[in-house]
Amino acid sequence: MPYGQREGQDPSWFASSETCWLPARGAARLATARTTVLGDDPVTATLREDLQVLAAHAGAPGAADGSRRLLVGALPELSEQALGPALAGALESADVPAGEGFAVLARDGEVLLTAARPAGLRHGLGWLTRRFAGGWPDTDVTHVEEPRVDLRVLDHWDNMTDGPMGVVERGYAGDSIFFADGRVRTGAADLARVRDYARLISSIGVNAVCLNNVNVHATEAHLLDEHLGDVARLAAVLDAHGVRTLLSVDFSAPISLGGLDTADPLDERVAAWWAETTKRVATTLPGFGGYVVKADSENRPGPHTYGRTHADGANVLAAALAPFEALVLWRCFVYDCHQDWRDRSTDRARAAHDHFAGLDGEFAPNAVLQVKNGPMDFQVREPVSPLLGALPRTGVAVEFQITQEYTGQQKHLCHLGTQWSEVLRFDLNAHGGGEPLRVADVATRSRRQGGSPTGIVGVANVGTDTNWTGHALAQANLYAFGRLAWNPELDPRDVLDEWVEQTFELPSGLAGELVELMARSWSVYESYTAPLGVGWMVRPGHHYGPDIDGYEYTPWGTYHFADRDGIGVDRTAATGTGYAAQYPAGWARVYEDVTTCPDELLLFFHHVPYGHVLRSGTTVVQHVYDTHFAGVEAVEGFAATWQRIAAHVPGTVSRNVTERFGEQLRSAREWRDQVNTYFFRKSGVPDATGRRIH
Amino acid sequence: MPYGQREGQDPSWFASSETCWLPARGAARLATARTTVLGDDPVTATLREDLQVLAAHAGAPGAADGSRRLLVGALPELSEQALGPALAGALESADVPAGEGFAVLARDGEVLLTAARPAGLRHGLGWLTRRFAGGWPDTDVTHVEEPRVDLRVLDHWDNMTDGPMGVVERGYAGDSIFFADGRVRTGAADLARVRDYARLISSIGVNAVCLNNVNVHATEAHLLDEHLGDVARLAAVLDAHGVRTLLSVDFSAPISLGGLDTADPLDERVAAWWAETTKRVATTLPGFGGYVVKADSENRPGPHTYGRTHADGANVLAAALAPFEALVLWRCFVYDCHQDWRDRSTDRARAAHDHFAGLDGEFAPNAVLQVKNGPMDFQVREPVSPLLGALPRTGVAVEFQITQEYTGQQKHLCHLGTQWSEVLRFDLNAHGGGEPLRVADVATRSRRQGGSPTGIVGVANVGTDTNWTGHALAQANLYAFGRLAWNPELDPRDVLDEWVEQTFELPSGLAGELVELMARSWSVYESYTAPLGVGWMVRPGHHYGPDIDGYEYTPWGTYHFADRDGIGVDRTAATGTGYAAQYPAGWARVYEDVTTCPDELLLFFHHVPYGHVLRSGTTVVQHVYDTHFAGVEAVEGFAATWQRIAAHVPGTVSRNVTERFGEQLRSAREWRDQVNTYFFRKSGVPDATGRRIH
Repeated sequence: MPYGQREGQDPSWFASSETCWLPARGAARLATARTTVLGDDPVTATLREDLQVLAAHAGAPGAADGSRRLLVGALPELSEQALGPALAGALESADVPAGEGFAVLARDGEVLLTAARPAGLRHGLGWLTRRFAGGWPDTDVTHVEEPRVDLRVLDHWDNMTDGPMGVVERGYAGDSIFFADGRVRTGAADLARVRDYARLISSIGVNAVCLNNVNVHATEAHLLDEHLGDVARLAAVLDAHGVRTLLSVDFSAPISLGGLDTADPLDERVAAWWAETTKRVATTLPGFGGYVVKADSENRPGPHTYGRTHADGANVLAAALAPFEALVLWRCFVYDCHQDWRDRSTDRARAAHDHFAGLDGEFAPNAVLQVKNGPMDFQVREPVSPLLGALPRTGVAVEFQITQEYTGQQKHLCHLGTQWSEVLRFDLNAHGGGEPLRVADVATRSRRQGGSPTGIVGVANVGTDTNWTGHALAQANLYAFGRLAWNPELDPRDVLDEWVEQTFELPSGLAGELVELMARSWSVYESYTAPLGVGWMVRPGHHYGPDIDGYEYTPWGTYHFADRDGIGVDRTAATGTGYAAQYPAGWARVYEDVTTCPDELLLFFHHVPYGHVLRSGTTVVQHVYDTHFAGVEAVEGFAATWQRIAAHVPGTVSRNVTERFGEQLRSAREWRDQVNTYFFRKSGVPDATGRRIH
Repeated sequence: MPYGQREGQDPSWFASSETCWLPARGAARLATARTTVLGDDPVTATLREDLQVLAAHAGAPGAADGSRRLLVGALPELSEQALGPALAGALESADVPAGEGFAVLARDGEVLLTAARPAGLRHGLGWLTRRFAGGWPDTDVTHVEEPRVDLRVLDHWDNMTDGPMGVVERGYAGDSIFFADGRVRTGAADLARVRDYARLISSIGVNAVCLNNVNVHATEAHLLDEHLGDVARLAAVLDAHGVRTLLSVDFSAPISLGGLDTADPLDERVAAWWAETTKRVATTLPGFGGYVVKADSENRPGPHTYGRTHADGANVLAAALAPFEALVLWRCFVYDCHQDWRDRSTDRARAAHDHFAGLDGEFAPNAVLQVKNGPMDFQVREPVSPLLGALPRTGVAVEFQITQEYTGQQKHLCHLGTQWSEVLRFDLNAHGGGEPLRVADVATRSRRQGGSPTGIVGVANVGTDTNWTGHALAQANLYAFGRLAWNPELDPRDVLDEWVEQTFELPSGLAGELVELMARSWSVYESYTAPLGVGWMVRPGHHYGPDIDGYEYTPWGTYHFADRDGIGVDRTAATGTGYAAQYPAGWARVYEDVTTCPDELLLFFHHVPYGHVLRSGTTVVQHVYDTHFAGVEAVEGFAATWQRIAAHVPGTVSRNVTERFGEQLRSAREWRDQVNTYFFRKSGVPDATGRRIH
């Protein structure tokens, strides 16, 4: 499948797509200097090629100002002679970080980008592009930076073949950039696109990509054998950008691929098969990073089949991976997807904590538990998963969903950096639960304290669409993910500022309006969809658009229990499922009490009458009406604001976003009317201000 | 795709499937006589081959009793000599019908089957099989029979390729027996299976089959050109059984196939293209019967595109077909499938009558309007379509759905002969509306009065499953369709008796129990699904299983408007959509008045409070609870009864039906609990007898 060509492309940087946040014409300003890149390893060599392309784009090297000089090289490559006296002196006193960090030193119009390892140069180039694209520094600069998080991973849910869930499961940006028609994409244009992708994600600090869907089907199982040589070609491209390659594996592969009669993790033959297979994979794939596993979840096989624990399951893989400094990322998205809706005592929200908290300390050092940010499944609003605070002796990664499965599917603008930052800043021990323990602290733990690796994982939102993400403004979600994974302390609004500035050339007033609009978009999406933390009011299966009772009588454990009197799930310890008690004492107390529970999570923790008065002072049902009317008005405002911005962006972006706002507005009205009508029919309470409810 | 082989087959009659209601071992009793078949036309020749197979199955011809003789031949083939004196005398005084009827005469142990045309022999063989399979007649018999209905048609919704709706749209019995992988099936095994099918359906009097789905996609459009030669091979098989071949066509074919820039039915080039195309089709296909058209419906193209009427659209095809004594069957399933659920004034139930009643008399003599039995879409309970009584000057066919789209998808036992008979006996002019006009009278009109053809069409329920229909007992729906299309006056219970007797060899008590169970199954299905005529409480898209609000906020025009106070659609003339007034005066008055409207249609015509007292004496909400509890109990009873029957049927049937009852029971409980919980949550009214509602 060749990619289309569209106007607004920047082909000198991007093989087959729109430019995203690394437009050559912007970044080329860097290359107005005389540039020297030292080193011949793949990462440095690739970076040299990129800078040569930029220089060609900018005209003759040094044409603008012969006195400007850019020197790039990892520490071992730097000689006194290459540095010259000014930079050599600066380097002497600089503390270049080990690992993936980098240093940028500017003296007398000369700039040095260096790092302990070549991968750091790649991440540093992103910083340089942001910092210097607007103009060459005219003062001295000493900037040293390193990632605050060890694992910064993108999970692709890409399949090799089309199927009931599509080529990319929950993908809204075209087909897979890695696979097509049952094979790995290895054509020249395909590899060029992967290189573009690697350049983009390494510029924001991502250091690992899992190529294939966590639901590993029959074809993808053969990535470990039949297709391994082709995978190596993708891995080489990623590796040349400092990005490691992960593969999702099927826990029952010892049976399906190995011909064994069991996948019991304690069976020696199984361990031997994994060891042998992993050795072949690790020695074939440049930059192999390990495995991602979804086991005993949503009908996937796992260790429970053999009466073993998740720790047993993860550890057999960890042992096979350890010789190669590779990891197993073991997902904690484990729950009963065959629940009886009549059974009110079982609570899916409890499941991850119930399954995994008790296993803390039993996992191998190179095993990492991958925990979704909330206890359910990437709803627009959920509490933070209490499991994130319950694994002090285990590798942990918090998993976010960049692809907008439940948040408008890249038809709606919903900037998720805001949500992720809120999660990262959430203190699990607040309200007297103990020493502060923010999710960011969990993610940064291994950087600060050593021990098993910790980090942040995001489910990718890109595909073969020329703008990468379907909705052009959804690029900002990918950008924000990378930036927050690099540094969870960043203000998400600053990150948006960066993205807008790098991506467009807008008059500053409009840039600010666009940032403001995007920063509000998550809470606006929340306002016109499911209210007060209740969730799941979407069409079953595809998860787009409203269906208030859509999940109410299903086996998925996803209910709101609305009746003519009230709505919500009682998850208190006193009278409900006890989920609230999975939190440390502070939050457990706050969530348990209907008077202290935050409004936005009220229906997640409590079943209340429609007339219940929120902390905001309004009733539940009036809150539903108010937010749904206001949400649609906000989208109308977005669309109007965009019309003013649209003239200043490339035509492809203008048309794409205008069309998406049209659909968002249609869909938001549908949400408003269906939700309001549903609750009016059920409660019989009219809107206090007499607005029309159908 | 080869068909599987299973135990219980009767390969001497059936190429690749279970035996259905024509088991060779039963029918072979016929062939214990010395048999002579006179005539060499394809129908007679095929019948001769079938009788030879039977004879081989029964042993040497005449082995049982040399004095028995069976003579078969159309009237022109019969000579004095062949007849012998006894049969010649009998024939002299018999009134052999013209057309498709037949006569069976028995004198002195000699039996004659004759007919004016060979097709009548085929239908007569079905009668002979039923009548004589149990034993050779020992008294004189003079039986003359002819169909009461001219058009007895099976519509297949078969696609040539797999797609979003499957190979067979709404098919629950495997793949298409006519098409596979984008081509017509023409392998030897394929044609043998089609021959088996033709034998089955001609034995019950079906005289036409439409091969392809009314939704004609790009591939199927080419049945008229590229694939026509292959279609001819299927048509030849059907024609040799007295069954004509119809094709569904795309109204825009003059554009897509003909390269014209319009499909305007009044454009001369369009008329010429249809004439030329139809000439090629009609002269290529043996027994070509005409076209089926779904136009201006569910996003299909049609005459409205060009500002023309449905009569204009049908007539251009009718003109092309007239030289070949072929028909256009023009479907009246036309409504707005992009309705706004907020708009309560638009009523899909009105649509067919609104679109077509005013066009009565404007259609060509060989155009037939194909009208679904109810105004919506094959729900388990709907009123009879008022359009059926509004077309006295137009060819009409009532359309039933044999495939169980909304009635359990051949996982649930739901015998539809009961429903169809109720529709056929429904008098549109009852309650003082005028001279009796039953739906059966409409269907038999052309036989009784001449004029444009009238008849009965059924959407087929067969596929490549070896038992033909997925659920072995769903064979009885196909059987009942054919028998009622032949004679709408038949008692559906007698038809069930026939089917059970021909299909199984059960002790008579158990046969009676099976008939009783099947006869009740439609009303049992109704009892645990959507109550009181409300309909549409199914999962959108696939239509299996409950989803009470599933269609409530969709564009499909299918709502129940349940709120905390009541439920139902006000279709009265006084305060509602006016649909009730589409009926002749008698029914219009009965349906208009909430006190006279039949209970089973109350919510179709009226919006009433949950406490409304039905004519039965119970309230609406208590009726919901009572019927849903009773429905599940009835299915439990079915499953128990079947356990006693199962030992007496072939293992394949026993296992198949046992497995299906298991699923039906699971599903019925789900229906019961979801419907009851929904209405309890909404109404707040507890069950009067305190049964458990979740």
